[in-house]
Amino acid sequence: MRPRPVHLSSPASCGKDSLQIFPLPGLPEIRRGQDLAALIYRQSRRSRFAFADCDVLIVAQKIVSKAEGRVVSLHGLKPSADALRLSRELRQDSRFLEAVLRETRRIVRRGPQTLIVETHHGLVCASAGVDRSNVPGKDRVALLPRNPDASARKIAARLRKLTGKRLAVVISDTFGRPWRLGLTNVAIGAAGLPVLLDLRGSRDRAGKRLHATILALADDLAAAAGLLMGKGDGIPVVVIRGLRYPASRDSAARIIRPASQDLFR
Amino acid sequence: MRPRPVHLSSPASCGKDSLQIFPLPGLPEIRRGQDLAALIYRQSRRSRFAFADCDVLIVAQKIVSKAEGRVVSLHGLKPSADALRLSRELRQDSRFLEAVLRETRRIVRRGPQTLIVETHHGLVCASAGVDRSNVPGKDRVALLPRNPDASARKIAARLRKLTGKRLAVVISDTFGRPWRLGLTNVAIGAAGLPVLLDLRGSRDRAGKRLHATILALADDLAAAAGLLMGKGDGIPVVVIRGLRYPASRDSAARIIRPASQDLFR
Repeated sequence: MRPRPVHLSSPASCGKDSLQIFPLPGLPEIRRGQDLAALIYRQSRRSRFAFADCDVLIVAQKIVSKAEGRVVSLHGLKPSADALRLSRELRQDSRFLEAVLRETRRIVRRGPQTLIVETHHGLVCASAGVDRSNVPGKDRVALLPRNPDASARKIAARLRKLTGKRLAVVISDTFGRPWRLGLTNVAIGAAGLPVLLDLRGSRDRAGKRLHATILALADDLAAAAGLLMGKGDGIPVVVIRGLRYPASRDSAARIIRPASQDLFR
Repeated sequence: MRPRPVHLSSPASCGKDSLQIFPLPGLPEIRRGQDLAALIYRQSRRSRFAFADCDVLIVAQKIVSKAEGRVVSLHGLKPSADALRLSRELRQDSRFLEAVLRETRRIVRRGPQTLIVETHHGLVCASAGVDRSNVPGKDRVALLPRNPDASARKIAARLRKLTGKRLAVVISDTFGRPWRLGLTNVAIGAAGLPVLLDLRGSRDRAGKRLHATILALADDLAAAAGLLMGKGDGIPVVVIRGLRYPASRDSAARIIRPASQDLFR
């Protein structure tokens, strides 16, 4: 393999050697029914940020949920018997647990102060992604979007129209994981790019065939965006530029491991 | 929160708003006993890449293992009774499984063609990280470094001396995970930066305290580097520039979830 020079000053564009990750701060608090893509576009113009072909936008789930009205007040929720029982066991608010159970297909594991569930989407995460943080108002929580892939497709289509650029969108949320501490950003919705890169059949540099190598591209993108999003920072949109990827009709639902192949479900 | 402009042309530097991710291709095949930091430095000079303060180098485990002589030939391995039994059950090479078991503290889960174990480091991953890919020679496999944090510290110290810059190093490997398909790059060794960012006690933009928010910074960095490393690409070193982080004596061992807090161990 010949060395390829890395030019620090080379302008970044689709498929170039280096990547750039830009934050898009300054979005207003998002309200139900708002056109999120239009708000992102307007903010990009205000920030003098010009989208380019092949940019990947990582959009935090929270603002998608807000735009889609997926915010509920715990005040009006009557806890079921299951929620009350879990509330005593886990020492969590029974109304919060009621909101969680309504988003839940199956409880995967319960531990001290933790409830790991499978959501109706098939995602496995703590509290079904129900989350108090960054939601204004007491006792209000955000739920995950009903169909995050559809949300991503809608935002991508609208932004492509507004910008005239070929863009991909990933909707991300921060999930914990077994065996390792800390949250990482993962992709719960995607549009316009392959979510998994299948390298099986390709060869490594030693000439051996790569066997079990499928890379979780959309999750790696979400995690990279997580470096700028933080959590309380109010940077719910991040743009990754320079990635080499083919157009795709893929969706993030495909990342969910089928139960038949899952040793931990 | 006031909008902050994003300047496409602004030079990236430590703690700036945007991040850049540079590949450092062109390293030669690494051999046992070689000074990896010196090879990286030499290759950076050849590629006209100048390191900057606060750059984070993500180094693929494979080249660290090679430099440390952590490559074994399966040819000389006599499979134990356990390896032979697992070999029949999983339909894998008994000598490969012998190499895996020698790196294993405990088997976590076995499935068709998969063996998830806890390594002597406490890492939970498939096949104890033992891997045939990118290892020249038939029947040769790479093992994980014995102490990846010590490896990271050594590389960081040497590179700081060579470059005169304050650098951090993350040693990464690609791991699978439960519930989600695809591999992501994670941090198995680290030096010079905090591996977990504890945001508990800080406030979100709605003014609420963030409760359970610890971000897995080193893993997010590894995943971001994974976007350029691929697997067969021969890009085992990636530089991430622009990250805001305090100096730290942290180590990646701290990312490993203590068994007492782990619902899946």
